[in-house]
Amino acid sequence: MAKERIILGIDPGTNIMGYGVIKVTGNNPNMLCLDVVHLNKLGDHYLKLKTIFEKTLMIIDEFNPDEVALEAPFFGKNVQSMLKLGRAQGVAMAAALSRSIPVFEYLPKKVKMSVTGNGNASKEQLSGMLQSMYNFKNPPKYLDATDGLAVATCHFLQSKNGQLISNSKSGWKSFLKENPDRIG
Amino acid sequence: MAKERIILGIDPGTNIMGYGVIKVTGNNPNMLCLDVVHLNKLGDHYLKLKTIFEKTLMIIDEFNPDEVALEAPFFGKNVQSMLKLGRAQGVAMAAALSRSIPVFEYLPKKVKMSVTGNGNASKEQLSGMLQSMYNFKNPPKYLDATDGLAVATCHFLQSKNGQLISNSKSGWKSFLKENPDRIG
Repeated sequence: MAKERIILGIDPGTNIMGYGVIKVTGNNPNMLCLDVVHLNKLGDHYLKLKTIFEKTLMIIDEFNPDEVALEAPFFGKNVQSMLKLGRAQGVAMAAALSRSIPVFEYLPKKVKMSVTGNGNASKEQLSGMLQSMYNFKNPPKYLDATDGLAVATCHFLQSKNGQLISNSKSGWKSFLKENPDRIG
Repeated sequence: MAKERIILGIDPGTNIMGYGVIKVTGNNPNMLCLDVVHLNKLGDHYLKLKTIFEKTLMIIDEFNPDEVALEAPFFGKNVQSMLKLGRAQGVAMAAALSRSIPVFEYLPKKVKMSVTGNGNASKEQLSGMLQSMYNFKNPPKYLDATDGLAVATCHFLQSKNGQLISNSKSGWKSFLKENPDRIG
């Protein structure tokens, strides 16, 4: 029997959190879930973080993923937005780490390149590629959902190609090593 | 019998996390605990975050605090350091929120002002003030520990004076409202 792996992909944000779950049987990925969590109507910053944490735990407990992949930009417009984004990423990571599930992160450009072959693909192009890949009928109302599915797919493709880098290397260290000129 | 409250104060960082726990009986604060968690020897960014999350949960489960206060700078040198700090804050917050304990945050300047009367006090001055306030013999080896105790004390002083602002107001909103010129 082919080995099965379940991958949860999350695009954490402070207004909408997108997520997708795939089941990989051998080298064949199938979509189990594609959805968003709306946070923009929750005015309270803490309530948003609590919701991200609890919702991520709920998804983990429902699908029991083997790995969690996060879309994680390393650059933003300003320090405030990055602090807020860092908090959102932190609570999503805490949910995974509290269940001892390894966390992997990918830059948005890496996700686009991996899934579409073009690091500058639009959200629509990314969504279209995933739609044909997973054969779902209608694109989701919110493209943030496909961003979550995209990072799960990127993680699958990276590991499929035998290029999987360990979580300790896929983050800051390798990023800074590969982009020494971009250290602020 | 005077009402008792337990406050956990945390100074989250990616190298050292400082924390202090106080028990307030009526208007009288007593120190229960003052310590640091060393993270700098943990090379892996995820292991650091997991350690912050688990250690915060352990402290919460040991002391059962009614409130958690965080020292939370809103500004840093660059977007990378703020993203890392945001993640550290996020996992500490997630630990508190996962136990349904309200989280409050204070700017470093506010903490110093509240405890010493001087918003620009040095770490040594802050530590000295806390040492005489709580009557502990030796200053801790790492001043990050007193930073944790300081934010717990700041939270106590704010609520004591009837100036406690709810957690939904003490964060981004009030900060941005009070500092419109500092929005990046």
